[in-house]
Amino acid sequence: MLDNLDKFKCLKRGPSGAINIDPLQRGGVLTPEAREAILEWADGYSVCDFCTGSLESIDSPPIREFVQDVLPEFLETDQVRITHGAREGIFAAMHALCERGETVVADGNAHYTTLLAAELAGLKVEPVPAGQEPHYRVDPQGYEEAIERARGKGEVVGMAVLTYPDGNYGNLVDPRTVSEICRREGVPLIINGAYSVGRMAVGAKSLGADVIIGSGHKSMASSGPIGVIGTSDELAAMIFRRSQLVPHKELEMLGCTLRGAGILTMMASFPAVVERTKLWDEEVEKARWFAGEMGKLGMDLQGDRPHGHDLMFFKSEILYEISKTAKKGRYFLYRELKKRKIFGIKPGLTRQFKLSSYLLPRDDLKMVLSAFEEIVSHHPKA
Amino acid sequence: MLDNLDKFKCLKRGPSGAINIDPLQRGGVLTPEAREAILEWADGYSVCDFCTGSLESIDSPPIREFVQDVLPEFLETDQVRITHGAREGIFAAMHALCERGETVVADGNAHYTTLLAAELAGLKVEPVPAGQEPHYRVDPQGYEEAIERARGKGEVVGMAVLTYPDGNYGNLVDPRTVSEICRREGVPLIINGAYSVGRMAVGAKSLGADVIIGSGHKSMASSGPIGVIGTSDELAAMIFRRSQLVPHKELEMLGCTLRGAGILTMMASFPAVVERTKLWDEEVEKARWFAGEMGKLGMDLQGDRPHGHDLMFFKSEILYEISKTAKKGRYFLYRELKKRKIFGIKPGLTRQFKLSSYLLPRDDLKMVLSAFEEIVSHHPKA
Repeated sequence: MLDNLDKFKCLKRGPSGAINIDPLQRGGVLTPEAREAILEWADGYSVCDFCTGSLESIDSPPIREFVQDVLPEFLETDQVRITHGAREGIFAAMHALCERGETVVADGNAHYTTLLAAELAGLKVEPVPAGQEPHYRVDPQGYEEAIERARGKGEVVGMAVLTYPDGNYGNLVDPRTVSEICRREGVPLIINGAYSVGRMAVGAKSLGADVIIGSGHKSMASSGPIGVIGTSDELAAMIFRRSQLVPHKELEMLGCTLRGAGILTMMASFPAVVERTKLWDEEVEKARWFAGEMGKLGMDLQGDRPHGHDLMFFKSEILYEISKTAKKGRYFLYRELKKRKIFGIKPGLTRQFKLSSYLLPRDDLKMVLSAFEEIVSHHPKA
Repeated sequence: MLDNLDKFKCLKRGPSGAINIDPLQRGGVLTPEAREAILEWADGYSVCDFCTGSLESIDSPPIREFVQDVLPEFLETDQVRITHGAREGIFAAMHALCERGETVVADGNAHYTTLLAAELAGLKVEPVPAGQEPHYRVDPQGYEEAIERARGKGEVVGMAVLTYPDGNYGNLVDPRTVSEICRREGVPLIINGAYSVGRMAVGAKSLGADVIIGSGHKSMASSGPIGVIGTSDELAAMIFRRSQLVPHKELEMLGCTLRGAGILTMMASFPAVVERTKLWDEEVEKARWFAGEMGKLGMDLQGDRPHGHDLMFFKSEILYEISKTAKKGRYFLYRELKKRKIFGIKPGLTRQFKLSSYLLPRDDLKMVLSAFEEIVSHHPKA
């Protein structure tokens, strides 16, 4: 096995000039500055040359200023740390703020990693159920009911999580209402902004979050895995508490997290990321236009109407009907799109699929629409 | 603050043509193949396009084959997972295999992150003390005494950790003796090979480890942070157990870890990494030669004699004496080396410092030796 390793060298990602509509990918495409940064800082532990004890205190490159001054302003928090990603930030907050055996209340559309983080921290999860199709809405008042439900079972509610927006439908639950409920009930609210921080102008204060989580690779044009966690001084004293055995190191971070190039890509992209959040309304408008056109072709947008995010979930009985008799069966859609250099809809899906229009020029989106139109018109229905 | 962000773009790492002797950096320098890979796979979540549920099952790029077939052979284990780094792997193993309140026995030269991982997992640490200078040796028999000592206090010993080699002195404790003691005492042994896996031909079976940990950015020519954890099927069933709430995801990994370019750099470098482990004896010989020459200049190698690793810790009364009256005081050594484009000894250190000769040509090391010789001869002692 160890004699035949050349296959692991020179692997290519995909054809150039392709259009990628995968929601996982759109917000993580590097800026030209970040592409320069990643090559410059690619080697191993490259940011640690001038470390004096912690990642966030490195002056050269200016990680200290970025993490201690700039990101807190951006996230409207007192303190920020860099994490390995959104899920790792959520785990750190849950593990630090909750006692084992307590319960976390989370929206029914939460990313699966919210459940994993809770389980790994020894916590139970009380869901705020999402409604039926086509909207799959989470009612913010549901947080009050879920907290009461859990307490009615004798459980201690240690935290609430709101996924803003969720990663399935791109739904945006009113965070202020959730926040007011949580404040009234004395439950800290953590907002998972993996699909908002770096896309939308959001911050902990305006959302009413006690802890805000972001994802570098999902929405901050950074090379993954990387994320951010921001919080108040009060909660920071617990989440970022120092170790008792190694007193100058932060326990929950295991000392340091992003000891490599990823943090430099986040920094290099950051000026552009700040600018792009100011153009969010245009992205929403574009997504609505795209969804409208898709609707005319028989693909029905699910989730919020009007839609408020580039992440879109479609259902399509037409494509499903075609797949029943098409060559390659349910893989026909993936193949047909691939032929046209369009990627990002998971192989095998036809009846329902997700995509994102984020930062794609309208001309590219028109090519995507033409592709769907062609595919539908050229294939006989079952 | 958010108006003046251009400083975060176009940051440079250091002058070209410099010699870097930082032990953190030597084993993490990317191969040319890995430099190609990082640019190709730099964007966000770039490896997740063809994911069917977990990082380790991705066929394109061939992560499945690399993690499920190749790495287990390399590490002599049944199963391997990719982690965010050595410390995160150690935490996962401790958290999964030990109950809160138990005790971990660890060598006195262990990296500080071993203590953090134990503390974060709710465990106590019973050290196997290192001896006095100049050798700082950890006696493998000390593991038996430490286990007995802990048990004498009524503690349950859940795990033993051996750092092989340690990151301060590059000392190599006989792992087979430690392993036999642990087996006899019924304590699983985890070997932290952050400075051996990828440098030396080591594997769990030959070392006698139940769990083996490696670091991509320290010793596998990978862009950090990234690491590996390997173990038997028996322990894998616990460390890599599935979530109860999300049954197809591994709990301790929070689903997936290295969802980005780092894993592709590890794969691209791997053929060269396998080859370089075969040349380890030459690296040791070179380190011994270098340490001998340093000795002639008044810098005394600490740790194992004969030395068995490229990581070297020196003490130098001469440089310390010079620093007392030198311009820039204790920063003079850093400045003098920097003038000669030699980096990697921490600013401010003179009386004792670490460096590594790993993969440096002898000509570069001769330039380092000349630099020290010049610095000593040109400066008056206090």
